[in-house]
Amino acid sequence: MLHTPNHDYRILDAQGAADYLAAHPALAAHLGGTPGEWTCRDVADGNLNSVFLIDGPQGGLCVKQSLPYVRVFGEGWPMDINRARFEHAYASRVAPHVGTLAPRIHHFDETQFITVMEKLEPHIILRNAMLAGRRLPRAVADVAEYAARTAFHTSDLAVPFERKFADAGVFSGNLALQRITVDLVFTDPYVESGRNRVLSPHLDAWAASLREDSALKAAVARHRLAYLSKAQSVLHGDLHTGSVMVTPDDTRIIDGEFALLGPTGFDTGTFIAHYVMAWFARSAHEGSSQENASFRAALADDIVEFWNVFATRFIHLWQEWDGENDGTPRTHFTSGTDRQALDAFRRSYVDEILADTVAFMGVEIIRRIIGFAQLADFTTIADEPARARAMAGALSFARTVLLNPGRFRDVATLVGALLEHERADAGDPQATGNV
Amino acid sequence: MLHTPNHDYRILDAQGAADYLAAHPALAAHLGGTPGEWTCRDVADGNLNSVFLIDGPQGGLCVKQSLPYVRVFGEGWPMDINRARFEHAYASRVAPHVGTLAPRIHHFDETQFITVMEKLEPHIILRNAMLAGRRLPRAVADVAEYAARTAFHTSDLAVPFERKFADAGVFSGNLALQRITVDLVFTDPYVESGRNRVLSPHLDAWAASLREDSALKAAVARHRLAYLSKAQSVLHGDLHTGSVMVTPDDTRIIDGEFALLGPTGFDTGTFIAHYVMAWFARSAHEGSSQENASFRAALADDIVEFWNVFATRFIHLWQEWDGENDGTPRTHFTSGTDRQALDAFRRSYVDEILADTVAFMGVEIIRRIIGFAQLADFTTIADEPARARAMAGALSFARTVLLNPGRFRDVATLVGALLEHERADAGDPQATGNV
Repeated sequence: MLHTPNHDYRILDAQGAADYLAAHPALAAHLGGTPGEWTCRDVADGNLNSVFLIDGPQGGLCVKQSLPYVRVFGEGWPMDINRARFEHAYASRVAPHVGTLAPRIHHFDETQFITVMEKLEPHIILRNAMLAGRRLPRAVADVAEYAARTAFHTSDLAVPFERKFADAGVFSGNLALQRITVDLVFTDPYVESGRNRVLSPHLDAWAASLREDSALKAAVARHRLAYLSKAQSVLHGDLHTGSVMVTPDDTRIIDGEFALLGPTGFDTGTFIAHYVMAWFARSAHEGSSQENASFRAALADDIVEFWNVFATRFIHLWQEWDGENDGTPRTHFTSGTDRQALDAFRRSYVDEILADTVAFMGVEIIRRIIGFAQLADFTTIADEPARARAMAGALSFARTVLLNPGRFRDVATLVGALLEHERADAGDPQATGNV
Repeated sequence: MLHTPNHDYRILDAQGAADYLAAHPALAAHLGGTPGEWTCRDVADGNLNSVFLIDGPQGGLCVKQSLPYVRVFGEGWPMDINRARFEHAYASRVAPHVGTLAPRIHHFDETQFITVMEKLEPHIILRNAMLAGRRLPRAVADVAEYAARTAFHTSDLAVPFERKFADAGVFSGNLALQRITVDLVFTDPYVESGRNRVLSPHLDAWAASLREDSALKAAVARHRLAYLSKAQSVLHGDLHTGSVMVTPDDTRIIDGEFALLGPTGFDTGTFIAHYVMAWFARSAHEGSSQENASFRAALADDIVEFWNVFATRFIHLWQEWDGENDGTPRTHFTSGTDRQALDAFRRSYVDEILADTVAFMGVEIIRRIIGFAQLADFTTIADEPARARAMAGALSFARTVLLNPGRFRDVATLVGALLEHERADAGDPQATGNV
């Protein structure tokens, strides 16, 4: 028996999605014409939800529905359907601050767990663009802008604490998806778990080495605790290159159902992790070695640009902010020396976000290689020994940043260390790139 | 027009409190006899609420009622009456862990905002005992035990995160009292505010100096942000010597209406601050200088004992804990080297609590001397210049620990620094004890 929260809930198919829009005149008006003229496609790409695109003579809409289970697995893996509510709460919370960096939400249905939003076209998923060797000129700066705006405007730096505590009240209810993060990201990769997907036998020694690395597990514990207790800002919670839709001119961040009030560096670290993994994966992809080298240099530049735009914009938003807030109240910083002290404090605050970013990046890399949710960046490498070498490089890099936080206090040093780990030994975790 | 949450709410007087108990047979049974045999006293001592003690032939009860305003001020200072609900939520949350270190709660009335609890007799308020020069042999170790148990058992070290997020959902609603803390503790003392109560003219220069100290205000901003965003454990939120009832054999912590999910070091820092202030105040109190010196040495020992008991007990609870938790999951720490790494992590975790403790202690000292809520430790010193000297010493000590966090990494160093600030100049904040 399927656990659904109410008797009226019905799972949509493609035709059902069109019928749903037809029954809502304000939505149907976006499409134009009559329902008979509409086309409807099932385009679900992620793991969890149904997604349909409906096109009419005047335009298109995207219909997303939560299911009471994990879509790609089926009813045997139940999943709290209320995730749709948290995704909507997140989208509503950040909408005033992100402009066109997120799709416009037209409608949310609390009974059917349906969100109707702007159809993004001709957008493609950023990860797919990167896999195809395409560089999207705006993507990195746009995601950095999005991360800076959402982080700043939902923090104690920009709002009275009552507003943030209200967010805490909302997002502390998003338990089912936080449980996924706690288990799949922070816990499973360091134990023998049936959910892990180690590239065996090539990386068996690496997986064992991570399980046996006491100092690494202590570092992960420190950052798992930060994830659960550092309530800095409302986070997307799953900000990777699969959560970004792009064209050369436009960038949209989607899929905020993992939203929580957490450490700002979690979103930025997750995003950078996927550029790092693309970098390591690239050596094993088809194409000339010169093309690959050039693409990797561009990815390294992207990481630097992402961090620099984020840090610059975050500090700029803070400097320009004249609203009430409890973090650094205006009345405390009025003189010239006050403003100097505040500027120094801002720099130290952003330095701390970078330290968290680097650590969460490391955790994300390890879980994407050892854990349940694998990436196309690696799985598309047919040559398993080559895939294992690319993965081992990324693991070696991740382990090093987690064990040596003091060494990576600026993004140039971080990116400079990529090459040190390129030749990590897939079969011997202690051989290279280790410290 | 008084803002009350429901039409049935009635403000009790002493007779009304007795009538209330008489109307609840299970409560009346604690008193025994008939209502005509009971005696009832109004014993309100704090600023906010009504408190009555009712005695019968068989025993006594304490009846506490929230008012929709600040009791000592009157209806002109409205105050959210729901504080009673948060106090009850806090008492319920910690009750399974603190044994007899908190009074037993017999009854909570959500309509009348009444809590009926065990009457504590012959307990007196710890602050009053200290003012009278009495040493309570158990108090410090008992409060440390209470702080360790509440901090540990409500943290991610002892519970699955779902439990802590549920606490976040509850206590993030305790806005009215957090607003008091944010304003009165962290903000007012560093600006000219009508709520401040500077001992003028003696400390005018000190107050001005604190207002103009840009580095100090940046340090306070850092810790205000930690107060608002470091969701480590469920805190009492006002754990000073006025919130502790004692006999030589028994200690009870009361008045948890400021409860929040926050940094563990806030409770411990607040408590130590009041021992530090008692230490500085003591020099100006009546009595022989030898008596005073001996009492101060005992207070310094108390601070060391408080911290050592807290740290030892916190780590011991952690080492012994075998329940499910997400902070340091058992499955990650199984081998001998794992356990060594975990022990090192525990020490670093407690070191971080000490750093927070020292900082929040400094913030609490400053607000109790410059801000609205003054302490009897100082106000009972009739000689104003002597009072000012004692206050200046405490301010100098507080400023130093906030500006030099790296210097106070163990409690012996902290206590050793008390004497350096004893001769701070009340009229010249830059003269002595400054760095």
